[in-house]
Amino acid sequence: MRTLLTVGAVIQSSESWIDGPAHIVIEDDRIAALAAGPYAGPQSEFDLVIRRPHALALPGLINAHGHAAMTLLRGVGDDVPLFTWLHERIFPLEAKLTGEAVYWGTLLACWEMIRSGTTCFTDMYMMMDHAAQAAAESGLRAVLSWGMVGLDEASAEAGIRNTRRFAAAWHKAADGRITVTLGPHAPYTCPPAYLTRVAELSAELGLPIQIHLAETRQEVADSLARYGASPIVHADRCGLFAHPVLAAHCVHVDDDDIAILQHRGVRVAHNPQSNLKLASGVAPVARMRAAGVTVGLGTDGAASNNNLDMFEEMRLAATLHKGVHEDAAAIPAREAFAMATELGARAVFLPEGHGTLAPGQPADIVLLDMTSPHFIPPRDLLSHVVYAAGADDVTDVFVAGRMLMAKGEVLTLDTERIRYEVRRLVSLFSGSS
Amino acid sequence: MRTLLTVGAVIQSSESWIDGPAHIVIEDDRIAALAAGPYAGPQSEFDLVIRRPHALALPGLINAHGHAAMTLLRGVGDDVPLFTWLHERIFPLEAKLTGEAVYWGTLLACWEMIRSGTTCFTDMYMMMDHAAQAAAESGLRAVLSWGMVGLDEASAEAGIRNTRRFAAAWHKAADGRITVTLGPHAPYTCPPAYLTRVAELSAELGLPIQIHLAETRQEVADSLARYGASPIVHADRCGLFAHPVLAAHCVHVDDDDIAILQHRGVRVAHNPQSNLKLASGVAPVARMRAAGVTVGLGTDGAASNNNLDMFEEMRLAATLHKGVHEDAAAIPAREAFAMATELGARAVFLPEGHGTLAPGQPADIVLLDMTSPHFIPPRDLLSHVVYAAGADDVTDVFVAGRMLMAKGEVLTLDTERIRYEVRRLVSLFSGSS
Repeated sequence: MRTLLTVGAVIQSSESWIDGPAHIVIEDDRIAALAAGPYAGPQSEFDLVIRRPHALALPGLINAHGHAAMTLLRGVGDDVPLFTWLHERIFPLEAKLTGEAVYWGTLLACWEMIRSGTTCFTDMYMMMDHAAQAAAESGLRAVLSWGMVGLDEASAEAGIRNTRRFAAAWHKAADGRITVTLGPHAPYTCPPAYLTRVAELSAELGLPIQIHLAETRQEVADSLARYGASPIVHADRCGLFAHPVLAAHCVHVDDDDIAILQHRGVRVAHNPQSNLKLASGVAPVARMRAAGVTVGLGTDGAASNNNLDMFEEMRLAATLHKGVHEDAAAIPAREAFAMATELGARAVFLPEGHGTLAPGQPADIVLLDMTSPHFIPPRDLLSHVVYAAGADDVTDVFVAGRMLMAKGEVLTLDTERIRYEVRRLVSLFSGSS
Repeated sequence: MRTLLTVGAVIQSSESWIDGPAHIVIEDDRIAALAAGPYAGPQSEFDLVIRRPHALALPGLINAHGHAAMTLLRGVGDDVPLFTWLHERIFPLEAKLTGEAVYWGTLLACWEMIRSGTTCFTDMYMMMDHAAQAAAESGLRAVLSWGMVGLDEASAEAGIRNTRRFAAAWHKAADGRITVTLGPHAPYTCPPAYLTRVAELSAELGLPIQIHLAETRQEVADSLARYGASPIVHADRCGLFAHPVLAAHCVHVDDDDIAILQHRGVRVAHNPQSNLKLASGVAPVARMRAAGVTVGLGTDGAASNNNLDMFEEMRLAATLHKGVHEDAAAIPAREAFAMATELGARAVFLPEGHGTLAPGQPADIVLLDMTSPHFIPPRDLLSHVVYAAGADDVTDVFVAGRMLMAKGEVLTLDTERIRYEVRRLVSLFSGSS
């Protein structure tokens, strides 16, 4: 399958762009060629020619942290802090979730993410075979973990068993779009010996790890009281950081923690909106970046955000740290864009070069409508994407060369049915209609 | 003109909503009736019947602070602080602006605001007769000020003269949609005697005042050094607060300042995204609200934001203060919604009841598409509007009973021409194409 896509401009990465008409040749799942100006050869070479003269092409956004099926819980726990939110609002409802609910909730998340220009997402949740099925059908790229909790022996064993089974069934599935990582939930739900077992399993299976670390001030205080160590130091002592790790949040980390993250090559998923809404705080992202830590951006689950819009996270990453530290140069537009694309790809363990548009890289491409007022007047394209554009400007989405959305219409999902099934399922388990 | 609008749900105000089918009767520019269920009488009573069974109706959003034509400067000054931004990026370009540029720049702003569900905006800028013309044509409600700067005698006199002329020509124009306020820029551009003259002019013309106050830490330090008083205390001493005042920003205010704002009935326009992007800081909005200060929300100009999307401001107002103060109950969804609607109306001096949907109130109505994933599953409508919805969900906009946007299409503006004219004008004065 050969596709010719002509556009009005291209952002290839945070460091390079074409500010004028350009063409992209897609062969199967990869970009074969990308250059300024029209395609020189005959268009009869192509199975499909897509002309979008007013479109800006950019790398698909990468959502580096989330819990997709929590779309089902959107709005159940507003205006309460993390601990209350988790124990009083979320856990009681999650106890009633079924595989069917995870499947439809994940499809709802995929729909929302496609609409807002995300092409790859991470997920750590339960009954993940159902989530993986949804991700496969949606056409998105996905990095999936079966959430592991070690608070009792039965749960701990189930976590290991489910993860082994899930990895065997789904790692590199869906033409390689789906990869599996290990998902120990957090140090406060996984005792030290369990974290060490997870680290050993990571080595055995050759799979990286994602975990929540240092999300709240209380978590750090508890960790210091219990282990005499911050969550970062503790996780390192348990052997986790001997393996590739993506740490979500890292809101409350000090310079020693940051030095460990850098030294051990731990990636961080920054979730600014979720951290604000749950009153967790503001992660020291500028300091982490200055130390050389790889930082991606995530929405977190829709119950703590309450949407899955990566444009909002990118904009917040570029503005929040400026305001809080009264430093207008903190996290410039280029840096926030990189965090949502190429750094995000690195954060979620995708091969080098993912998150950019270049020959040989996957055709994970998002088109924005430059006739939108957000792009007028035309100036710095990257600035407009980070500071002005939004989900309302996204028109087309490609993942691995396949069109998931065309001119605003999602092609891979039956959105009417998702609406129907989610309403039905939610009325069953929460009494809401 | 009688219109029947049937919708799937209505948020009338932050305190009341109809979570099911409802109808709204619009007579000329006002809401004549609003109730749950279908309209009981014959539809032949109406000139127009609009059926939106999947729409959520809410009061149009009110943008309480901005500089509309600064859309022309979108993206010219990123990642620099206010002082540099103003003196090195903005002022040199503004010196080249023409009336024609202000007209087209304001139309661009109106287009962007209509698309994102704003029905009323404030503006403080230059050559405001051109801005007023644009506002009148757009169909939006507008609260307009000719910016006054008193750094030299000629500018000071021109400001007074222009304001008198502008108020005479435009106050209550466009069927009352346009009102005029006085616009002294700030204490650091208006010497004390000039502020006092503006206060006297306010009394003479019976028009309220809008001004920038306490935006940056440096402004406060300079004010203390020069006047021995904070900008708030200083403005009060100059006699400004004896008249109705809308103070934009109020980022750096202490408890004494807040007590003055409350005691004097000064309204505040909170511009969270602009304050973050320009590294000004985070306004103590929760403390101002607790003290009983009326706080509205604004985008500020598109050169410091860089868009005019009030959903983003509403969401930031509801999340930023939670995160920064680590208090999940700070500015709950209901409060942020009120700040964007009924409190915003009060902040910009509209009559009591504006910013709500109720019989007798103006038909300033926005419809959101509840088939969007942001509204699934259906739960608390107000939470979904504040925490999940976005400009991409806005389908229809009414102001004073007139349809400005229908099913995503802006009806009152020639958007193709705006794009063309803005590109042309910007290439003239900034060398950009």
